[in-house]
Amino acid sequence: MKAPLASLLWRSLRVYQVFGANTDVGKTVFTTLLGRTAKRRWNDERVTFLKPVSTGSADEADDNHIRRFAEGVAHKTLFQYDIPVSPHTAALASGQPIPSDDALLAKCRSFAAECAAQGRGWLFVETAGGVHSPGPSGNTQADLYIPLRTPTVLIGDSRLGGISQTISAFESLRLRGYDVESIMLFQDAKYENYQYLSEYFAKHHGVPVTSMMSPPARVEDGKEDAAAMSDYYGNKECEDVSADVLEHLDRRHDERIASIESLAAKAHQHIWYPFTQQSLVGTKDIMTIDSAHGDYFQTLMPGKATADEPVLRSSFDGSASWWTQGLGHSNPQLTLAAAYAAGRYGHVMFASAVHQPAMALAQLLLEGMQNPRLNRVFFSDNGSTGTEVAVKMGLRAARVRYGWGTEERLGVLGLKGGYHGDTIGAMDMAEPCAFNEKVEWYEGKGFWFDYPTVLCIDGRWSVTVNQGLSKDIGDGQSYTSLSDIFDVEGREERGEHHRYEEYITKTLAALQERGQKFGSLIIEPIVLGAGGMELVDPLFQRTLVKVVRRSPHLFRTSDDAAPKDEKDWSGLPVIFDEVFTGLYRLGRFTPSSFLGVHPDISVHAKLLTGGLVPLCTTLASEHIFDVFSSNDKTDALLHGHSYTAHPIGCQVALESVKEMQAMEQRGDWAWAKNQGWTSSANAPSTLGADRVWSSWPRDFVQDLSHNTRRVSGAWALGSVLAIHLRDAAGTGYSSNAAQGLREALAKGKDSRDGGPWNVHSRVLGNVLYVMTSQTTSETSVRQIADLLKQSLA
Amino acid sequence: MKAPLASLLWRSLRVYQVFGANTDVGKTVFTTLLGRTAKRRWNDERVTFLKPVSTGSADEADDNHIRRFAEGVAHKTLFQYDIPVSPHTAALASGQPIPSDDALLAKCRSFAAECAAQGRGWLFVETAGGVHSPGPSGNTQADLYIPLRTPTVLIGDSRLGGISQTISAFESLRLRGYDVESIMLFQDAKYENYQYLSEYFAKHHGVPVTSMMSPPARVEDGKEDAAAMSDYYGNKECEDVSADVLEHLDRRHDERIASIESLAAKAHQHIWYPFTQQSLVGTKDIMTIDSAHGDYFQTLMPGKATADEPVLRSSFDGSASWWTQGLGHSNPQLTLAAAYAAGRYGHVMFASAVHQPAMALAQLLLEGMQNPRLNRVFFSDNGSTGTEVAVKMGLRAARVRYGWGTEERLGVLGLKGGYHGDTIGAMDMAEPCAFNEKVEWYEGKGFWFDYPTVLCIDGRWSVTVNQGLSKDIGDGQSYTSLSDIFDVEGREERGEHHRYEEYITKTLAALQERGQKFGSLIIEPIVLGAGGMELVDPLFQRTLVKVVRRSPHLFRTSDDAAPKDEKDWSGLPVIFDEVFTGLYRLGRFTPSSFLGVHPDISVHAKLLTGGLVPLCTTLASEHIFDVFSSNDKTDALLHGHSYTAHPIGCQVALESVKEMQAMEQRGDWAWAKNQGWTSSANAPSTLGADRVWSSWPRDFVQDLSHNTRRVSGAWALGSVLAIHLRDAAGTGYSSNAAQGLREALAKGKDSRDGGPWNVHSRVLGNVLYVMTSQTTSETSVRQIADLLKQSLA
Repeated sequence: MKAPLASLLWRSLRVYQVFGANTDVGKTVFTTLLGRTAKRRWNDERVTFLKPVSTGSADEADDNHIRRFAEGVAHKTLFQYDIPVSPHTAALASGQPIPSDDALLAKCRSFAAECAAQGRGWLFVETAGGVHSPGPSGNTQADLYIPLRTPTVLIGDSRLGGISQTISAFESLRLRGYDVESIMLFQDAKYENYQYLSEYFAKHHGVPVTSMMSPPARVEDGKEDAAAMSDYYGNKECEDVSADVLEHLDRRHDERIASIESLAAKAHQHIWYPFTQQSLVGTKDIMTIDSAHGDYFQTLMPGKATADEPVLRSSFDGSASWWTQGLGHSNPQLTLAAAYAAGRYGHVMFASAVHQPAMALAQLLLEGMQNPRLNRVFFSDNGSTGTEVAVKMGLRAARVRYGWGTEERLGVLGLKGGYHGDTIGAMDMAEPCAFNEKVEWYEGKGFWFDYPTVLCIDGRWSVTVNQGLSKDIGDGQSYTSLSDIFDVEGREERGEHHRYEEYITKTLAALQERGQKFGSLIIEPIVLGAGGMELVDPLFQRTLVKVVRRSPHLFRTSDDAAPKDEKDWSGLPVIFDEVFTGLYRLGRFTPSSFLGVHPDISVHAKLLTGGLVPLCTTLASEHIFDVFSSNDKTDALLHGHSYTAHPIGCQVALESVKEMQAMEQRGDWAWAKNQGWTSSANAPSTLGADRVWSSWPRDFVQDLSHNTRRVSGAWALGSVLAIHLRDAAGTGYSSNAAQGLREALAKGKDSRDGGPWNVHSRVLGNVLYVMTSQTTSETSVRQIADLLKQSLA
Repeated sequence: MKAPLASLLWRSLRVYQVFGANTDVGKTVFTTLLGRTAKRRWNDERVTFLKPVSTGSADEADDNHIRRFAEGVAHKTLFQYDIPVSPHTAALASGQPIPSDDALLAKCRSFAAECAAQGRGWLFVETAGGVHSPGPSGNTQADLYIPLRTPTVLIGDSRLGGISQTISAFESLRLRGYDVESIMLFQDAKYENYQYLSEYFAKHHGVPVTSMMSPPARVEDGKEDAAAMSDYYGNKECEDVSADVLEHLDRRHDERIASIESLAAKAHQHIWYPFTQQSLVGTKDIMTIDSAHGDYFQTLMPGKATADEPVLRSSFDGSASWWTQGLGHSNPQLTLAAAYAAGRYGHVMFASAVHQPAMALAQLLLEGMQNPRLNRVFFSDNGSTGTEVAVKMGLRAARVRYGWGTEERLGVLGLKGGYHGDTIGAMDMAEPCAFNEKVEWYEGKGFWFDYPTVLCIDGRWSVTVNQGLSKDIGDGQSYTSLSDIFDVEGREERGEHHRYEEYITKTLAALQERGQKFGSLIIEPIVLGAGGMELVDPLFQRTLVKVVRRSPHLFRTSDDAAPKDEKDWSGLPVIFDEVFTGLYRLGRFTPSSFLGVHPDISVHAKLLTGGLVPLCTTLASEHIFDVFSSNDKTDALLHGHSYTAHPIGCQVALESVKEMQAMEQRGDWAWAKNQGWTSSANAPSTLGADRVWSSWPRDFVQDLSHNTRRVSGAWALGSVLAIHLRDAAGTGYSSNAAQGLREALAKGKDSRDGGPWNVHSRVLGNVLYVMTSQTTSETSVRQIADLLKQSLA
């Protein structure tokens, strides 16, 4: 889905999509029956059939059939092809332009909106062929219609083999998030599929199966045939049975809306939200998410919708669901990967055991990092646990090499505002701040450097230095482009790193003087996420790592063994927390490639599983691993979670990481790179500084920054856009400066065909950020950029 | 699956299962073609067709067809029914006893084993109808054949609608973990399904699709028909195309074995294992898990299998995969729940948002606990994070009520050997021990009580008190049954709790005297899992909670606000870590029901998701929640993980918890309760002490304990069996006493039809435990009990 599309839900209109378990299972007969019975039962309401795509003259017969037997029922076909084959073949053969999935869906929605506007009624959307019969674009209908989120009536197959067809069709729908509300099929006395299927679906899925007498066999004589069909439709059993189904569908429609509308109140009463001051959150502030597809949630419209107002709107997931989404919500490819692993293993325990997805993922990551130091993969569940593991690894390595006893209190070196997660151990890696200062048991362990940051200010790409730091490293400076800032080798040649070196060395010496001991350097490369979306001057991070590595004397307190080889750590083990910035967030497999330095340990989560389930990997060098080897069990890294390396997570991660690699290979992001980011004016650089890019257009970012009244600076890199807003009251987590902009985005707008849409964004103090996934379309980016500009005007 | 069954994998025998996308898609023609071509290409090998179930005289024709056109190919039918309908209907109509799925699979396996014993060859297992056509038992074939783990050839449907049928059939197989290695279908010039499907499967699944000219239309005259078919099969295109497919299948067979056999070596080189001293683990010690179903892994046989030895065996998952498995591995019901949520949402962010599965799960848990104190649900990813959240909640509540500043160092009260996870904060809740004493940043914060334990010793159910503790509470005593020990109310009436009260009160007073401050009581109710599978005297835990609650004066340092009402905490917030013991592990929804006391906060994970994906919930009272309410964002509980309340986890948990509740309701565990646990001799008790039960027979546990030479005691409760072994060198995590027994179980045995099987178990120091899932069969329990007895003899 390239553009927003609100799902088809109105109080006034019961919309049901009719799928067939196969071709020729009686879809038209059942739809006709439902339509005519609806018209009799609710005779003052409008009943409409919509056939988005129709092929073959046979369908003309269907239209006639409906006209004849479902009197008073309106019907509409959106795309008609004459050849009686699958729509993708028919569309191709027609010579007409083939409608995109987006265009088809938008037409469905606007037609449904028209129906809804005309008062209470029913809309039956009839698909063509089986659930996976391809639509005009070639994508299968089951995939194509996901965004409509329309509850479904599945017409089962009553013939020999029909049990299998019906269950498989159901499963294909189910794993795409469809709610099948009713299954209907004919009573075939020989096979009695309906008996088996009734029990099956009652037991396994709680879905009612309704069977109906079969229609009369077709006879040659048209008149006789029509008379027989007329008798059939008029039969009391047919009418009663279809009336029962309709009552059920009517009730389910109301229940669905009631359920959606009650969720926020229930949540307000019973959910304890993460990272949320709930006294400031009323029921109306809770976003009810009915479903999600691609980059868009379907969320409940604020205020209670009247009968003909849409109940749902599409909301761009502007935080990428806390930075997790890579390949779009409800991606069938990832779903099938998850389902395959669930079906093959479920979860299997991992201590001294191995399974294929875990091993394959470990190898894929080790290879992808192109970091000769890394050779081991430790699995855990999330960034917090993964960074705790990393620090347990790093501290032990330092302690053993430098001969410190267990009583020795070791800290980490990091950056101010660095953040590594919410467990106590992860919090302890961060300096005291709003996130942790009131947390019981928090005790910051380490030292955190101040650093220069990168912002586009009033159209100029600048390295900025705050007042406190400027006395140490001097003032910041401006550059022609972001590429110039990322050209760290060129800047080194010009000696720009010297002032950083001096500051870092001097600081470390002073810390040593004071007797502080450190066991690791841990940083988020390039961007500090939770710490306020700060883009750190890459030259500073590179210099920090280099100084630490060549300065063992600033850390050790006695003679120490030298590094064993060039893959061994030196000075301190260097940990890169790439949970936020890794795996193509910033446009590259690993952000360490911007810095041109390799960590000894790196941590990966979030995008790792493409936005589906929790999983984290901590990668480490063999030298770090070796430190834990002995004949004593208790020297081991005594850490592990029950679901360590759960196969579902590993399989999904494999699929996800491979797909992102394939996207890079295929050049899927060419449109983004061409938005002013790469230009022949950039000098080639071994670290690829000339090729930094973002899904947000360069000119747009620069334009934003010209709004100096409201914007203090902005930057974009990879999928991230961060807007630093002016805040008279001072910045920080407690700032409310960005709330106004957030609310304007949340208000959103109406699109003609796609219905209402908005942008759900998150703020960090005075910073508002909007993040795309790795599959966001140019269209979406442009729409959001326009909305942002308007909102800031 | 009720009994072990090794998957069908031998080096010598390429076994492929042939599924049809529908009936009448040409399965027999393709199988015949593959068989005859295999026989020509590998003419010194045996080629065999196996039809596990065959229905109708039409199938006799199939047999003749094969005999005539696939000369030299052996064929075998296991169950033949005459009526040409679906096997479940045919089997019922036959009047013969209906074979169970287990019996059918065992027959398949022993037939395949015979084939494998006869040298190199091929075995094609042909299913009946479509993938979900029901087998004789009524379960569909796609479900029924999962345990064979046989790679699959899917015969696609070339007719109108066949694209949909083929994709859906593929998905039904895929989500059950089948590896579809090849898809074959006829070339229908009109619909050209093969063209679409080739592209589709290449793009989405990397599965080759092969198309083949259609066979001649059937003609009336039998002789003519046979001649035409003979020409067809002899056609060079047919032979060449099927030879290509066979080469592919031949290669995939070898690749599969090579991949399985290489995993352990790769893991040895690149995986960093949780909780494992890897210098003690060689490649041969790493268990390679090819798949898992029900309670059994499929694992690589130790040593390199010769050509006709099985490559895999079934291994009972005796740790329930680190205590996670409830409803069996690869349970299609849970897979579909996971897939539905993935298809509907993927993951959606949860801060100030709500989605249906999260809300429904929250309500289900709150209701299930039947604890009037609990009203709020906080989601996190695993037990470690969930207990950290619990302690952050509890400590804050105590600090605020008792007016302690943030500088005040608060500890927790707990039990010796208690364990709450591996993150630093969770470790800090535990007293120093082998798990944490060498971990950097660990710093135990609290006081941990010693306690009496429960064991069956030499046939007598005893409360045992160690030497150190006996001077405080006197010696232990014996009871007639486990029920008598769990009758805490009866024991209170007899005053047995007085000595506990005195000990606890005295200890708390002394701690107060020393100035130690506490913010929470945290215990694992009933069983301390990681701490050595200790069954704690329930009367002690009950008394501990009661004393804490009525003794605010032992904790506060100044006047404090009284509890607001009877749902408010008193003394200290009481946290139950039910991660291991909750959700039917011990036979009940919550183990707090044994104690008759309600916690203020409880933590749930592991079984929560039935053994599929990580998820944890921390439940809390409204009074605890209220403490975090203010107008200041930074007073909130600042904790949250990216995948908080991920819909897949919530949906799977919903399905899983509801299914376990249904099992309880339906009486599915009656067989277990009837193993000597419940008897009319037990006095009825309000807390149901007369109804404690285990899946392990009572007599078996008592018998084990008679083996006093090797066993110091044993206990069983719910799904857990713990055997405490004598250890001359002293007990504890470093003990090796249980290793011998573990190795004997790992050696396992051979069953006639099911092939080799063994038990994978874990030890904790001198304790070996074996844990069932909530669906383990009586058969499996008996087999393992026998193996245990033999191994201990």
